[in-house]
Amino acid sequence: MTEFHGVIPPVVIARHEDGTFDEESTTKNLNRLLEAGVDGLFILGSSGEGAFVTDTERDQVVKNAIAVAGGKVPVLVGCIDTQTSRVIEHIKHAEAAGADGIVATAPFYALGGLPQVERHFRLLHEATSLPIFAYDIPVCVHVKLPPELLIKLGKDGVLAGVKDSSGDDVSFRFLTQLNEEAGHPLRLFTGHEVVVDGAYLSGADGSVPGLGNVDPWGYVRQWQAYQKGDWETVRAEQDRLARLMRITSVATSITGFGGGVGAFKQALKLQGIFASARMPEPVAELTEEEVAKIREILSAEGVL
Amino acid sequence: MTEFHGVIPPVVIARHEDGTFDEESTTKNLNRLLEAGVDGLFILGSSGEGAFVTDTERDQVVKNAIAVAGGKVPVLVGCIDTQTSRVIEHIKHAEAAGADGIVATAPFYALGGLPQVERHFRLLHEATSLPIFAYDIPVCVHVKLPPELLIKLGKDGVLAGVKDSSGDDVSFRFLTQLNEEAGHPLRLFTGHEVVVDGAYLSGADGSVPGLGNVDPWGYVRQWQAYQKGDWETVRAEQDRLARLMRITSVATSITGFGGGVGAFKQALKLQGIFASARMPEPVAELTEEEVAKIREILSAEGVL
Amino acid sequence: MTEFHGVIPPVVIARHEDGTFDEESTTKNLNRLLEAGVDGLFILGSSGEGAFVTDTERDQVVKNAIAVAGGKVPVLVGCIDTQTSRVIEHIKHAEAAGADGIVATAPFYALGGLPQVERHFRLLHEATSLPIFAYDIPVCVHVKLPPELLIKLGKDGVLAGVKDSSGDDVSFRFLTQLNEEAGHPLRLFTGHEVVVDGAYLSGADGSVPGLGNVDPWGYVRQWQAYQKGDWETVRAEQDRLARLMRITSVATSITGFGGGVGAFKQALKLQGIFASARMPEPVAELTEEEVAKIREILSAEGVL
Amino acid sequence: MTEFHGVIPPVVIARHEDGTFDEESTTKNLNRLLEAGVDGLFILGSSGEGAFVTDTERDQVVKNAIAVAGGKVPVLVGCIDTQTSRVIEHIKHAEAAGADGIVATAPFYALGGLPQVERHFRLLHEATSLPIFAYDIPVCVHVKLPPELLIKLGKDGVLAGVKDSSGDDVSFRFLTQLNEEAGHPLRLFTGHEVVVDGAYLSGADGSVPGLGNVDPWGYVRQWQAYQKGDWETVRAEQDRLARLMRITSVATSITGFGGGVGAFKQALKLQGIFASARMPEPVAELTEEEVAKIREILSAEGVL
Repeated sequence: MTEFHGVIPPVVIARHEDGTFDEESTTKNLNRLLEAGVDGLFILGSSGEGAFVTDTERDQVVKNAIAVAGGKVPVLVGCIDTQTSRVIEHIKHAEAAGADGIVATAPFYALGGLPQVERHFRLLHEATSLPIFAYDIPVCVHVKLPPELLIKLGKDGVLAGVKDSSGDDVSFRFLTQLNEEAGHPLRLFTGHEVVVDGAYLSGADGSVPGLGNVDPWGYVRQWQAYQKGDWETVRAEQDRLARLMRITSVATSITGFGGGVGAFKQALKLQGIFASARMPEPVAELTEEEVAKIREILSAEGVL
Repeated sequence: MTEFHGVIPPVVIARHEDGTFDEESTTKNLNRLLEAGVDGLFILGSSGEGAFVTDTERDQVVKNAIAVAGGKVPVLVGCIDTQTSRVIEHIKHAEAAGADGIVATAPFYALGGLPQVERHFRLLHEATSLPIFAYDIPVCVHVKLPPELLIKLGKDGVLAGVKDSSGDDVSFRFLTQLNEEAGHPLRLFTGHEVVVDGAYLSGADGSVPGLGNVDPWGYVRQWQAYQKGDWETVRAEQDRLARLMRITSVATSITGFGGGVGAFKQALKLQGIFASARMPEPVAELTEEEVAKIREILSAEGVL
Repeated sequence: MTEFHGVIPPVVIARHEDGTFDEESTTKNLNRLLEAGVDGLFILGSSGEGAFVTDTERDQVVKNAIAVAGGKVPVLVGCIDTQTSRVIEHIKHAEAAGADGIVATAPFYALGGLPQVERHFRLLHEATSLPIFAYDIPVCVHVKLPPELLIKLGKDGVLAGVKDSSGDDVSFRFLTQLNEEAGHPLRLFTGHEVVVDGAYLSGADGSVPGLGNVDPWGYVRQWQAYQKGDWETVRAEQDRLARLMRITSVATSITGFGGGVGAFKQALKLQGIFASARMPEPVAELTEEEVAKIREILSAEGVL
Repeated sequence: MTEFHGVIPPVVIARHEDGTFDEESTTKNLNRLLEAGVDGLFILGSSGEGAFVTDTERDQVVKNAIAVAGGKVPVLVGCIDTQTSRVIEHIKHAEAAGADGIVATAPFYALGGLPQVERHFRLLHEATSLPIFAYDIPVCVHVKLPPELLIKLGKDGVLAGVKDSSGDDVSFRFLTQLNEEAGHPLRLFTGHEVVVDGAYLSGADGSVPGLGNVDPWGYVRQWQAYQKGDWETVRAEQDRLARLMRITSVATSITGFGGGVGAFKQALKLQGIFASARMPEPVAELTEEEVAKIREILSAEGVL
């Protein structure tokens, strides 16, 4: 089985001014990530517009990423949808396209309980031979995946790992600790780019930083320092990256996804990677004033 | 344009024991609703498994309902999906199949603000000539649609009406009042089957009661009494229906959708309409003990 | 025992410009309420600054209200505090001052479960012979009191009634129905001034409308119409009062308590009842522009 | 001015079996903390029953702690109450008793906005010359204190520091970073005992660990290792303490405060420090079975 560890950025995708998928710009981004030395690619996550793409776009994004990766690093495909049957359709598609693993959240929209969440992941596993990563993102799906359930699913071979975007570092510490005691059945990644150092201190197997699209080198250096136990470097890189992350706080014209991923897209445009910072509908782009602030921050942190 | 008013139940769909769509049982339910005198049909809403169906199932459900309705009453199709482009694909499908209107929620999963919600509905309107009903269901999409925004979209011809499942009767009163003052651009329906009488007192144009699958006659009689201003009958019917609604509270084995729609399906099976009470994955069926309690309530309220 | 029913407004209190309690203005308000024919007074509720008063102010407010009421109508005293022992101290004070009943919420700040909520009310009951009304206000205490628990406490003689400010009319309908089936152990009041008509349709024993400070006559007329089964009048009064309630939506300079109770205080000042619209710290007063809008609404609805 | 840094446990207080304050047991706990080398004491916080004590108990707890501390370490007094005037009364009391600083939350129960929160802290500051620590605990007061506001209040001399119990490590990282850039006006403490190591990596000035009542030596050793930059020891101590923290997860008979502080009290009783594990009303004690599990964990981690 593919080994998963290290820095696996959730890839931000580019769109042309008319809103259609921009393969060329997206490829540039993918290539830069690979050159910087990332350990994997995670496409169609929350930052990667997994909740926005049509089936046609999904096909374009998946095929392009797998082609560009060319087997050099594993490609994880986000299969984000409301309920089990729909997610399985996306999984089948990813499998056919040659994905190395899939990432799925708890079911959402219709309300259920933890037994439904557990059954959901078991059914996904029955439907595929690909490794499945649970995506713990309560801000989007409004349920927190408890460490005990994750460990149980890891021991049963249902889950291969977890992408933790829960914002709950206490729970993450319990999870890493229980995972060690269980023989490390799960590969554990943090999605919080501002406190990756703390997650490494907790024993994370890697990170999935959205900001890694803007500065992949920083996260790769941080991972290498962590491998050597060089905590002062881990921490110093984090401090710099936390300052860079302020680009996601400049927006006042828009909240949520548009402010965060919108900032990443503007940064990629300023860096010459993306031709356009076009967002998926119904999300607006940042204003010129906001873009000016992003430019300042990028300059100050040396990534422009 | 089609006129929308009165009782428009969110149609519960049947599945075979193997989980596939049961057209025969669903048709029985649709025919019973029509015989009882409902004023329209709403398919693929939250109760109608709009968040669970695959594209294939969606096609089956839509075509069957439109065929059974046969133009006698309008058919509204729920187009529930995460973001604008995906919703538009469902709208195009509904339009092609001959729907009389569509029902759509605010975007969900990815976080945004009210300007995104507004743009979302405007884009849906640009994509179709069908009347659009906004589905206000914060418990599922985690945003409440403000009355002011709804009225604005109504006056601009973007929205034809609202299905209010917000649980916020204060907001609904303000909405009905603002709607009157604006010349009644919106048709306003309550989705709360237990307090339809209060919504009628507030001036609602109709109701979309999930419980209407189990007792359509009660809601039809209540609507007729409302048309005559016979409030004591409106209230008495409501009291009986509220007691009947307790079937949705018997579940302790499961929470949320499974307890509510699960109870409706069990009732339809007990009434001989559905061959099976099979739920969509990953939702479990109610236990025998719970079904026994449902049977008792149905008997006590005279609908078995 | 005192009988509780009808219109029992949560009394808004006046403060001098320096922030101290203004007995004269408050007395004017109390007298106007009594002249309008209200059936009781509820002091130190959420609108009555129960969470803001010092012990000294509490004493002033309670003694004054009981003196002004003079036994003509019952006086309910809000005993709002974080946990059981503190609430009991307020109850003892109210009892000594001659209150006719007390109103208490579930415990708050420290987190607990329903068994703690139940024990809390049982301990309050053990500490006093006064009738206790449960104040169901999840927006402030972050727990919803379930109908089943309330009925149980009613049947056990622990609770005399409920002031429902939960915003959950479905739950309120179940509560009124279960209460009837149990022999009406609880007196049930709605705190939602915009949909009192719906609560009456559900069988409420009365209302506790904050807006009743501004227009007590309307709520009294509505209650009387309800007693006669004259639903069209009940509804027409409600429509007018709902328009008047828009004074609580004019604020953009402040949110929450300051926008709602702040509007009531400004209205009382405009009506010549209060000398000042001073709010308790740290709450700011509304702006002149906002006050101008309140004046317009009061004029339009004929209460200025 | 007193310097605040290092380990400042939120002191758990003891009660006799009849529920009254147990000064002797509480003194034993305080003395053990001092012997272990803690850098300060925080009394009447959330764990210290600040929301439960009557005025009489408050007086007992404050006087005893200040007497036992004897000036060896600073004593911070929690002044937890709903709104400004009430909090100021507690501050005046703490000041008179000789406290070295006070800790206060945002106002709660009545809803407001950030301008009210800011004004609240400014008014507290005007009322006292003691250093004020903002207690950021959204789980109890339902508002998160934004880093920008805290820094502003720090620069203005209103706040001396922050006790962060927000569970938001991303926000805490931004806070520590902004604080450095502003010249370190605030002393920043984490209240999350399971991830103190991550907070130290973020640059925290110390910790306020409830679990420090059960194992003060561990947190003191961890602090000393942090001072030396010995991250592996910081991390190893944390791993052990995280395992010990599992005593707060054994409860199934009770949730929230009762499960957490209840476990600390049972541990202190098992360690021979407390005569009783009595909780404040309306909170129940843990069951014998749960206590047996706590005993096992304490033994396994070598603190029994």
